Amino acid sequence: MADPRFFTKSQSFTLQSLCEITAARLHDQSSADFQIEDVAPLDRATSSELSFLDNIRYKDQFSQTKAGACFVHPDLVDLAPANTNLLVTEAPYTAYAKAAQALYPQTMPEASISPQAHIADSAQIGNSCVVEAGAVIQDNAKIGDHCWIEAGAVIGSHVELGDYGRVGPNATISHSIIGKHVRLYPGCRIGQDGFGFAMDPAGFVKVPQLGRVIIEDGVEIGANTTIDRGAGPDTVIGAGTWIDNLVQIGHNVKVGKCCVIVSQAGISGSTVLEDFVVLGGQVGVAGHLHLGKGARIAAQSGLMRNVPAGEEQMGSPAQPMKQYLRQVAALNRLIKTKKS
Amino acid sequence: MADPRFFTKSQSFTLQSLCEITAARLHDQSSADFQIEDVAPLDRATSSELSFLDNIRYKDQFSQTKAGACFVHPDLVDLAPANTNLLVTEAPYTAYAKAAQALYPQTMPEASISPQAHIADSAQIGNSCVVEAGAVIQDNAKIGDHCWIEAGAVIGSHVELGDYGRVGPNATISHSIIGKHVRLYPGCRIGQDGFGFAMDPAGFVKVPQLGRVIIEDGVEIGANTTIDRGAGPDTVIGAGTWIDNLVQIGHNVKVGKCCVIVSQAGISGSTVLEDFVVLGGQVGVAGHLHLGKGARIAAQSGLMRNVPAGEEQMGSPAQPMKQYLRQVAALNRLIKTKKS
Amino acid sequence: MADPRFFTKSQSFTLQSLCEITAARLHDQSSADFQIEDVAPLDRATSSELSFLDNIRYKDQFSQTKAGACFVHPDLVDLAPANTNLLVTEAPYTAYAKAAQALYPQTMPEASISPQAHIADSAQIGNSCVVEAGAVIQDNAKIGDHCWIEAGAVIGSHVELGDYGRVGPNATISHSIIGKHVRLYPGCRIGQDGFGFAMDPAGFVKVPQLGRVIIEDGVEIGANTTIDRGAGPDTVIGAGTWIDNLVQIGHNVKVGKCCVIVSQAGISGSTVLEDFVVLGGQVGVAGHLHLGKGARIAAQSGLMRNVPAGEEQMGSPAQPMKQYLRQVAALNRLIKTKKS
Repeated sequence: MADPRFFTKSQSFTLQSLCEITAARLHDQSSADFQIEDVAPLDRATSSELSFLDNIRYKDQFSQTKAGACFVHPDLVDLAPANTNLLVTEAPYTAYAKAAQALYPQTMPEASISPQAHIADSAQIGNSCVVEAGAVIQDNAKIGDHCWIEAGAVIGSHVELGDYGRVGPNATISHSIIGKHVRLYPGCRIGQDGFGFAMDPAGFVKVPQLGRVIIEDGVEIGANTTIDRGAGPDTVIGAGTWIDNLVQIGHNVKVGKCCVIVSQAGISGSTVLEDFVVLGGQVGVAGHLHLGKGARIAAQSGLMRNVPAGEEQMGSPAQPMKQYLRQVAALNRLIKTKKS
Repeated sequence: MADPRFFTKSQSFTLQSLCEITAARLHDQSSADFQIEDVAPLDRATSSELSFLDNIRYKDQFSQTKAGACFVHPDLVDLAPANTNLLVTEAPYTAYAKAAQALYPQTMPEASISPQAHIADSAQIGNSCVVEAGAVIQDNAKIGDHCWIEAGAVIGSHVELGDYGRVGPNATISHSIIGKHVRLYPGCRIGQDGFGFAMDPAGFVKVPQLGRVIIEDGVEIGANTTIDRGAGPDTVIGAGTWIDNLVQIGHNVKVGKCCVIVSQAGISGSTVLEDFVVLGGQVGVAGHLHLGKGARIAAQSGLMRNVPAGEEQMGSPAQPMKQYLRQVAALNRLIKTKKS
Repeated sequence: MADPRFFTKSQSFTLQSLCEITAARLHDQSSADFQIEDVAPLDRATSSELSFLDNIRYKDQFSQTKAGACFVHPDLVDLAPANTNLLVTEAPYTAYAKAAQALYPQTMPEASISPQAHIADSAQIGNSCVVEAGAVIQDNAKIGDHCWIEAGAVIGSHVELGDYGRVGPNATISHSIIGKHVRLYPGCRIGQDGFGFAMDPAGFVKVPQLGRVIIEDGVEIGANTTIDRGAGPDTVIGAGTWIDNLVQIGHNVKVGKCCVIVSQAGISGSTVLEDFVVLGGQVGVAGHLHLGKGARIAAQSGLMRNVPAGEEQMGSPAQPMKQYLRQVAALNRLIKTKKS
């Protein structure tokens, strides 16, 4: 059970109502009125708790679970223990996510503007907002309705933040236009100058960075991630994209819709990611490249060339997955030959 | 055109005056009085706007540009469209940078100390400074003239910041002596203890970190970058060096003058970079190494040995560029052989 | 000598008393009353200063040092210059650490709660604490005795911080239970939501992150490091573990006791590190893995499989050290063959 000091549970649900919320179906109709009080991992769930099997790696935990109910794929129903009620679905993890959201809805503190926040007179704050102590909102910033600006966050002059935005503690934003339902995690840095300079015998000459950061609706940006503003064009993050912690995104980068960028990846200036691109952790992408729709890049890869739509690549320098695996195999054979 | 909410244009310029500012020369003297109102990228510039061709990758955009004028290398003049005035120079990007600086000069808000800043009585603040709301300046810190301390920045006890310094929002500094014209981006961390401990059967024993961070004139340090202070000697960043976002610099590191360190690179303790060294993105450098003057290390490389002056290296572990490329080629032949 | 503006020296010590503090022994008993005023590196130490030889790379500096006294391993005593008193020990670096701690004891400012800190009425602050200007302590947070909350740090609702905790400037904590003698460096982010979502035709579905971060006693966490809270189980950092700057630790990760995680390493969700594991800089670890007790992973390695206890691995993908070195050698032979 989640620590009640940090998380507030809404109510209990019958399996029937959970099926309606998640589009799962009951394996046994007679369990429709069974009550679920909470969610829990397979190995810790009790007879009133709901769990899920998604990663086949955990099938032994599933077979031994004491959970009162469990989301499971139709193909794996036979692995279930006798006393666990089954909610069958092709997408057990999505179903679990929706059920957990119902049990623990994300809430926001009651609307209030802390007298210890520092808000410029010319800033506009929408209705029903929370602004915490130590937050700074500068000249002419426009904050939408239902926004939550956490302690120590700094919203720069003329920045626009859409409705239902949440800016984490000590995050900073400047030179940015941000859509609705965007969440910025603690310490992320949005809109500072990109790394732009020209070489000159007298030293480096700074190139004024005259673009913005445009963040579309429904984006999440992780803790301590940095997104530089454009040099002339804008830097753009497409709707529904999720970005993890400690990611670097350079000036003029365009990230499409529903991309996933895992922790510590870095994208150099002016590169374009089409929609649904996935970058694994610690991936590095050179500047001025184009990654086609749905390209998937494995962790720690280094991209120096464009990637066609839908292609999976790996390695540093990155190659199509099959070619990469052949290289690894060839290298292993080479060692074995030399040993014998 | 740059968003006027975020950027303030100074005035228009004739091509003649732009030539004086940038040391470019007119391709056609009759265009001397042509007026430039703004800068813009090649593909978006209009007939009153100035652009540039630097990367040959963009030559098609150049041939089709509607820009009123364009900086271009003498060898590429023939690719220009008929209606674009040409400013010819061997360094088009530098010239563009200087012109853009003239059109959009970097300005600072009018001098003022926010009553919502937290400044110790013993701190010294120079003339004509801006200190924003929520900034903290601690005991005996010395801030030079014309400095800009942004919201939520924390300047620790006895830190010295030279004239024309700018400390971004929520950046923190301790145990540091900082020169003139230094810019620290949002969230960078300067001067905290290095990662120093000795192993002992009873656990790790912390080694007191008794050095400082010395930052010379004209340095830029990116967002969320971390620079640890020395363990006994100082950590030093040489004049005119540019450091990108999310870089790690360990204790006792000496970085020379006019080095470039790209995002997410990391330098372990006590390593020395001579002047003009370039580290690509995500490069890792082991401790106690020496990188000679002008060494250039490609992105994602891992350095475990010293690098001679002027040498270009790549790979993990890094090797001289030619050797690295031979390895990649050999590996590719190996796969082809096995396939056939 | 350490800059007295930043570091306060306690007193001078005789070699006899330093031997008692560090368990070293005098090479020459007649030097027992020799006075040590300070510590310094080998190449800068003077006749009243104490230094150490730990890394054999510095043996020439040792042979030429002017230091009044030096910690040294018994096997290297013969390399010493005539005028330097020797303190002999099998662990010279540990001995130096303890001596330096005696000369420069870590101190905390006099207890005081800044009137410019923002502390919720329901928060509990222990005895003898320092809370600096701009710090924010939210509802029901519990801070132990002798804690030091630096400027701009944000301690979220219901967070517990044990005695002798120190939270650096602009660090943020939420959803966490933290032990005694824990030190969090500037800008680290503890307890935010992990990167958890399910794919759905309608977009990503957020998985509520219902766990906490548990940090045991004596842990140090570096600047701008990010540790996400658990998704259901907790994220746990074991007692005595040291984590460097810019490290990413995903949700549900369990780190054992006395582990060392070097800068810019990243650990994906649900992975387990047993006690005494060492991760080098920029190492990446995939999710759901198990690293046995005392496993050692070289810098920039990429782990995609479990690692047995005590094993040393290197490479991306990582392999046992011997196998990795054979691969590097085989590749080098391959190039030489092709050249001839």
